[in-house]
Amino acid sequence: MNIVIINGPNLNLLGRRETSIYGNKSFDNYLAELRAAYHGLNIEYVQSNCEGTIIDYLHQYGFTANAIILNAGAYTHTSIAIADAIRAINAPVIEVHISNIHAREEYRRQSMIAGACRGTIAGFGLDSYRLAIESIINNQ
Amino acid sequence: MNIVIINGPNLNLLGRRETSIYGNKSFDNYLAELRAAYHGLNIEYVQSNCEGTIIDYLHQYGFTANAIILNAGAYTHTSIAIADAIRAINAPVIEVHISNIHAREEYRRQSMIAGACRGTIAGFGLDSYRLAIESIINNQ
Amino acid sequence: MNIVIINGPNLNLLGRRETSIYGNKSFDNYLAELRAAYHGLNIEYVQSNCEGTIIDYLHQYGFTANAIILNAGAYTHTSIAIADAIRAINAPVIEVHISNIHAREEYRRQSMIAGACRGTIAGFGLDSYRLAIESIINNQ
Amino acid sequence: MNIVIINGPNLNLLGRRETSIYGNKSFDNYLAELRAAYHGLNIEYVQSNCEGTIIDYLHQYGFTANAIILNAGAYTHTSIAIADAIRAINAPVIEVHISNIHAREEYRRQSMIAGACRGTIAGFGLDSYRLAIESIINNQ
Amino acid sequence: MNIVIINGPNLNLLGRRETSIYGNKSFDNYLAELRAAYHGLNIEYVQSNCEGTIIDYLHQYGFTANAIILNAGAYTHTSIAIADAIRAINAPVIEVHISNIHAREEYRRQSMIAGACRGTIAGFGLDSYRLAIESIINNQ
Amino acid sequence: MNIVIINGPNLNLLGRRETSIYGNKSFDNYLAELRAAYHGLNIEYVQSNCEGTIIDYLHQYGFTANAIILNAGAYTHTSIAIADAIRAINAPVIEVHISNIHAREEYRRQSMIAGACRGTIAGFGLDSYRLAIESIINNQ
Amino acid sequence: MNIVIINGPNLNLLGRRETSIYGNKSFDNYLAELRAAYHGLNIEYVQSNCEGTIIDYLHQYGFTANAIILNAGAYTHTSIAIADAIRAINAPVIEVHISNIHAREEYRRQSMIAGACRGTIAGFGLDSYRLAIESIINNQ
Amino acid sequence: MNIVIINGPNLNLLGRRETSIYGNKSFDNYLAELRAAYHGLNIEYVQSNCEGTIIDYLHQYGFTANAIILNAGAYTHTSIAIADAIRAINAPVIEVHISNIHAREEYRRQSMIAGACRGTIAGFGLDSYRLAIESIINNQ
Amino acid sequence: MNIVIINGPNLNLLGRRETSIYGNKSFDNYLAELRAAYHGLNIEYVQSNCEGTIIDYLHQYGFTANAIILNAGAYTHTSIAIADAIRAINAPVIEVHISNIHAREEYRRQSMIAGACRGTIAGFGLDSYRLAIESIINNQ
Amino acid sequence: MNIVIINGPNLNLLGRRETSIYGNKSFDNYLAELRAAYHGLNIEYVQSNCEGTIIDYLHQYGFTANAIILNAGAYTHTSIAIADAIRAINAPVIEVHISNIHAREEYRRQSMIAGACRGTIAGFGLDSYRLAIESIINNQ
Amino acid sequence: MNIVIINGPNLNLLGRRETSIYGNKSFDNYLAELRAAYHGLNIEYVQSNCEGTIIDYLHQYGFTANAIILNAGAYTHTSIAIADAIRAINAPVIEVHISNIHAREEYRRQSMIAGACRGTIAGFGLDSYRLAIESIINNQ
Amino acid sequence: MNIVIINGPNLNLLGRRETSIYGNKSFDNYLAELRAAYHGLNIEYVQSNCEGTIIDYLHQYGFTANAIILNAGAYTHTSIAIADAIRAINAPVIEVHISNIHAREEYRRQSMIAGACRGTIAGFGLDSYRLAIESIINNQ
Repeated sequence: MNIVIINGPNLNLLGRRETSIYGNKSFDNYLAELRAAYHGLNIEYVQSNCEGTIIDYLHQYGFTANAIILNAGAYTHTSIAIADAIRAINAPVIEVHISNIHAREEYRRQSMIAGACRGTIAGFGLDSYRLAIESIINNQ
Repeated sequence: MNIVIINGPNLNLLGRRETSIYGNKSFDNYLAELRAAYHGLNIEYVQSNCEGTIIDYLHQYGFTANAIILNAGAYTHTSIAIADAIRAINAPVIEVHISNIHAREEYRRQSMIAGACRGTIAGFGLDSYRLAIESIINNQ
Repeated sequence: MNIVIINGPNLNLLGRRETSIYGNKSFDNYLAELRAAYHGLNIEYVQSNCEGTIIDYLHQYGFTANAIILNAGAYTHTSIAIADAIRAINAPVIEVHISNIHAREEYRRQSMIAGACRGTIAGFGLDSYRLAIESIINNQ
Repeated sequence: MNIVIINGPNLNLLGRRETSIYGNKSFDNYLAELRAAYHGLNIEYVQSNCEGTIIDYLHQYGFTANAIILNAGAYTHTSIAIADAIRAINAPVIEVHISNIHAREEYRRQSMIAGACRGTIAGFGLDSYRLAIESIINNQ
Repeated sequence: MNIVIINGPNLNLLGRRETSIYGNKSFDNYLAELRAAYHGLNIEYVQSNCEGTIIDYLHQYGFTANAIILNAGAYTHTSIAIADAIRAINAPVIEVHISNIHAREEYRRQSMIAGACRGTIAGFGLDSYRLAIESIINNQ
Repeated sequence: MNIVIINGPNLNLLGRRETSIYGNKSFDNYLAELRAAYHGLNIEYVQSNCEGTIIDYLHQYGFTANAIILNAGAYTHTSIAIADAIRAINAPVIEVHISNIHAREEYRRQSMIAGACRGTIAGFGLDSYRLAIESIINNQ
Repeated sequence: MNIVIINGPNLNLLGRRETSIYGNKSFDNYLAELRAAYHGLNIEYVQSNCEGTIIDYLHQYGFTANAIILNAGAYTHTSIAIADAIRAINAPVIEVHISNIHAREEYRRQSMIAGACRGTIAGFGLDSYRLAIESIINNQ
Repeated sequence: MNIVIINGPNLNLLGRRETSIYGNKSFDNYLAELRAAYHGLNIEYVQSNCEGTIIDYLHQYGFTANAIILNAGAYTHTSIAIADAIRAINAPVIEVHISNIHAREEYRRQSMIAGACRGTIAGFGLDSYRLAIESIINNQ
Repeated sequence: MNIVIINGPNLNLLGRRETSIYGNKSFDNYLAELRAAYHGLNIEYVQSNCEGTIIDYLHQYGFTANAIILNAGAYTHTSIAIADAIRAINAPVIEVHISNIHAREEYRRQSMIAGACRGTIAGFGLDSYRLAIESIINNQ
Repeated sequence: MNIVIINGPNLNLLGRRETSIYGNKSFDNYLAELRAAYHGLNIEYVQSNCEGTIIDYLHQYGFTANAIILNAGAYTHTSIAIADAIRAINAPVIEVHISNIHAREEYRRQSMIAGACRGTIAGFGLDSYRLAIESIINNQ
Repeated sequence: MNIVIINGPNLNLLGRRETSIYGNKSFDNYLAELRAAYHGLNIEYVQSNCEGTIIDYLHQYGFTANAIILNAGAYTHTSIAIADAIRAINAPVIEVHISNIHAREEYRRQSMIAGACRGTIAGFGLDSYRLAIESIINNQ
Repeated sequence: MNIVIINGPNLNLLGRRETSIYGNKSFDNYLAELRAAYHGLNIEYVQSNCEGTIIDYLHQYGFTANAIILNAGAYTHTSIAIADAIRAINAPVIEVHISNIHAREEYRRQSMIAGACRGTIAGFGLDSYRLAIESIINNQ
């Protein structure tokens, strides 16, 4: 089973950035743990700070992957174009967030992409990604 | 480990109600499966259609359970009182929804309680409850 | 034919409460007249000040009654949970109001439940209930 | 007793127009049935697509009819001028709608004229008109 | 000097309609007084309940009259089309209102046409029309 | 092929009215050119300043014309009734505007009727009408 | 003189709940002090987490008590039904809040019930209740 | 007859300030003309840039003057306190504006004080003041 | 103990102004009673109609008084500057209102200053001031 | 004559994506037809999913092309930066949409770029592009 | 070169007031430093807590000073009258703020006066004033 | 000292683009002057039309530069992602704008990034950049 994780803007700084909110583990370290725990799965990982590149990735993987896990970062709250990309592809997309976006600024409470995704998992730190994988496995 | 599942209004009709949205499995059947899968856990289950009784349950279990899984149903979108109850207790609360509330009516896109919860899982059908349990186990 | 009338909050005070708006006849007296006028019908009557109990009543009668007449009082303007209950049951629900809710405070002009009901009758005093019965009879 | 039914824009196409919403009976056919059922009443009928002409009709009949039944169609949601006309005349006005306007587009949920009417009946198909007549008879 | 007074919807009922707000003098009687007081002026008078006819009148008189006095009644608050007509013609238009529209319902506080007029006079009863004439005379 | 052009309020003044926005050619002159260029088509033309009459025209032609080109002028921004009329008829309706309504006042940026039309062409001066004809020819 | 204190949702946890906001004295302890200080008064006390039960209490005491002191907790901001109950009874109702609700979240700044009460006292900790009693004594 | 003109902020600069909007005649020169034209009247004149001083003036003259003409300048759009002062005094107040405030910035279209005044005259340049005097004379 | 009462705009007219809302006792008379009842306290009193002077008073007394009682009148609803002044000084400030501001116009329901005050007392007539003193004494 | 077509996000999937809305012809196929039909024109074509690259294209072609046809896809509704780019260049830009954006989600009804374009053509399927070319040819 | 610094409400308390936001240097001390650093300039300084007095100062200096540096404090967010005064005078006005007003409460994010000023400098502590002087020197 | 200037969308056209707003000097020419004036500083300069690339630049320089000067152009008003990037890095960021964004369109009055920056300088033409450098030097 092929699963792709797409991370959006500023998530490349994970572990260095606002650690009180996002924790101090880098995503690479976490990814290694995740792949180890789910060695039967093929987990691809890409990241971009650019809205357009995220759309490109959704197109690239959206017709071959079994599922996509998307943390669109701040584009979550503004991007109709990413939502359109999700609707345009075949693979189901799971929206994840590290922090509880509802406990933060008002403008982080609206997701433009949630309606196009299969479901949303938010607030469990990096464990949100693992839960998304769990949801995909169970849904096969 | 003690986990309590609290279901809110109309969830007692699960399996009979708008089955195209909520599926046709009753919660009792699902609960039996869940307990079987996680037999090491003590999973309590209560349901009420009354906002006040849900608050009572949060108070009753909120100082002894290890975690609470709450599907507040339609009260999700209107109840400040439930959010206050969540903030008033010790046990972490995980918000779950069966359907993807962001893909439905506009008024279902706002959660009054999400900000008071540890995290949110929505859109995975009944599997949302299992994912919540997974998040609790990993967070011990 | 089984018809159930469900009255919501403060309607138990009918005849004592703000009589310039709601009139000074108690609902019990009116109900007696109604049953006399429509003796061929079986008209059940329940009332509660509690949103949750109203939902309980809708569940209880919603799979056996031929129709339900609902005056949800102030919950009309705030309760998504009651609207969900109406959508969850089989019996058609007629929304009634004693006063013309559109000629009063701004916040009484929005009904959260009207969209889930078959139709709405408002502003005819207690006669609104009789008109609801008329609509049910004609629609069999 | 003189009753006047005033129909607003597009209701002349009843029976031809969006029949899944409005049904396929023409208003003329319905009116014949209504007059037959209530042969003791004098039921006038006028229709116009023009907001101004509806106001003219309200003025023309508003000082002599016993009551007016008004389906203002789409002007319901925008016309302060019709509401002013209703307030300017002596005859009570009953607002009716064929469809349940609350279960349709957002902009159909607001009535500019309801506050000026005695009451509102909506969602019962053409039977809404008969219920209005029932309300008038009972209120004499 | 040619002056045209255009009255909008429901103003034909002046003297009969909501006399606590609009007074009990008919416009015809008032007009006779006005013409007597300003006998050097040629004062035309037209009234219509129809938005389209008011636009027709503005077109008809708007290229020959010296000024137009317009009480657009309830269309004041909704009609972009009348505002466009005012901008399309040559004659300056003075907006008048009998009542103080700012001391009434919220929706009467917005004028869609004021921005297209030379000025506004509101709240002086029928004397508002005379003041408009005064403003025109002084501005020649 | 029968095509009907319906022009709304103030468009009878084309060529005389705010010529910096609308140009100084009258619609009659333009229509003659258009008919000459598309002599194989039967192009009817009607205009009215009255919302109700525009609805009448839509009804009159809406079951026989191949397509209707509608410039509803200022009613574009306020008329639900015209949108209902468009939905009630069989002929497809093309919305046209002479000016770029999005580059003008805020209230001209919302079209109440666009959702009921096949498409919209705005901002090309009188050429907008020709483009609408082109779209109709291509769509046969 | 009979005074009834009605406390709403989560106030049963006073002394245990968010003590930085609400202090760490239980309401029972405070009540004992209050009764001691005002031994000439008969002070009843009830609490419920259920909106409907609060309405029941208002009905139960609202025709016999001299005054009611109501801390409706989070229902303050959402309950039209409680406001209706206050308007339906004879006893004056004093709204109290322990914390300064205006210095907290935006949604706590609106009171749906204040308009139905005689007055409001907020922000003085538990002393708000004593001030309410003072206001009642002085107003006899 | 005693009439007081109160001018608000920046009106002391009349004749020097944004002359394309407000003209280039100083208020002193205009006042002299006005007094000459209405020599039978006693016309007081005061001006202040301070909201509080305008309230002081309304209090000072509001119990002895026959009427007050108030151009509150920019305070028109923000001052509830001036509106309260107008309601607190006996003399009727006429609101005047030199420019047509409805043809300018959006925030100039709302008057907080109009509802407390007898009427409003706006857009006639300095002649607005004379029209206010005319309205007062006619209303004695 | 030094307490300062600061009254805002129009409160100098107390006893003369809208007596159905504010009562007919002057503040001077009430103040004499209050000083007599609390002769152990030193109660200063100042009033101004000017927002800036109220800020001056807050600065003047805010570093020496034990507490300040502020009825900011209509500035309550608009003044961020007074709220800033309250935050800038040392003395706690109690917000009082004579009338129940929540039962009046919509714009009186928002307090810009409440969040900066210790607490709010509204709706008890002049007794609101005494209750504020009671709150101060108890809080020493 | 040089014309450039710039397509925005997700339009590279045309023919594969939500075919019930966008049809099942790829843009390349359509482009070939278009070039064949207008062989006298030089029609460049570029596409990008990236907002910044679309701006780059506008800069690149905006000083040499005779006109640009822009379908900005979902960026239409959010991008001020693209609107600024359109205003910054010399070539006129025609906004096109394949679907009728006004008949879809609310957030697709607002165009941030329309005000900067010469005109808009929406709802005619791929034929919208041809109509844009027609408008350009006629406008030379 | 004559430069005038006008400080608004509560800025007289600088150094004593909320020092975590505004720092603990008094403005007098800062001013001395500033004059020393720019001894070739004549720097006047005035402060007032009164909106009206700030307008008076703008009028007084606005026709003779080379530039005005204005920190309008909280009036920044509410005063149209100060904005009008800025537009009414000749001297350019630079808006300064000590704190970063965009990182604070929502209501501090809107400036009513910025649009009337030459430019804005905010967030640099007292150094904002020096930067304003720099901007003035460079712009001579 | 290392300072980086990052310019956002359309600023590469400076000197060619809307010269009445932005002036006709290219940024390269200005940069040369700036470097000459501040030769002791190392001033890097990058520009991109792509939101993602601007984030990349902030990451690249944000851990080594002493300060960053950011003119985010139109992304200022929409980009939460850039604001997140600013919060994620160590270097302080100064927001600059060439034009006075508050004197232009409404949608340019909101900055999504200002709250994350140290301060804002807007409206001084290209001199805004120099003032930012001045603020950095003084703050070392």
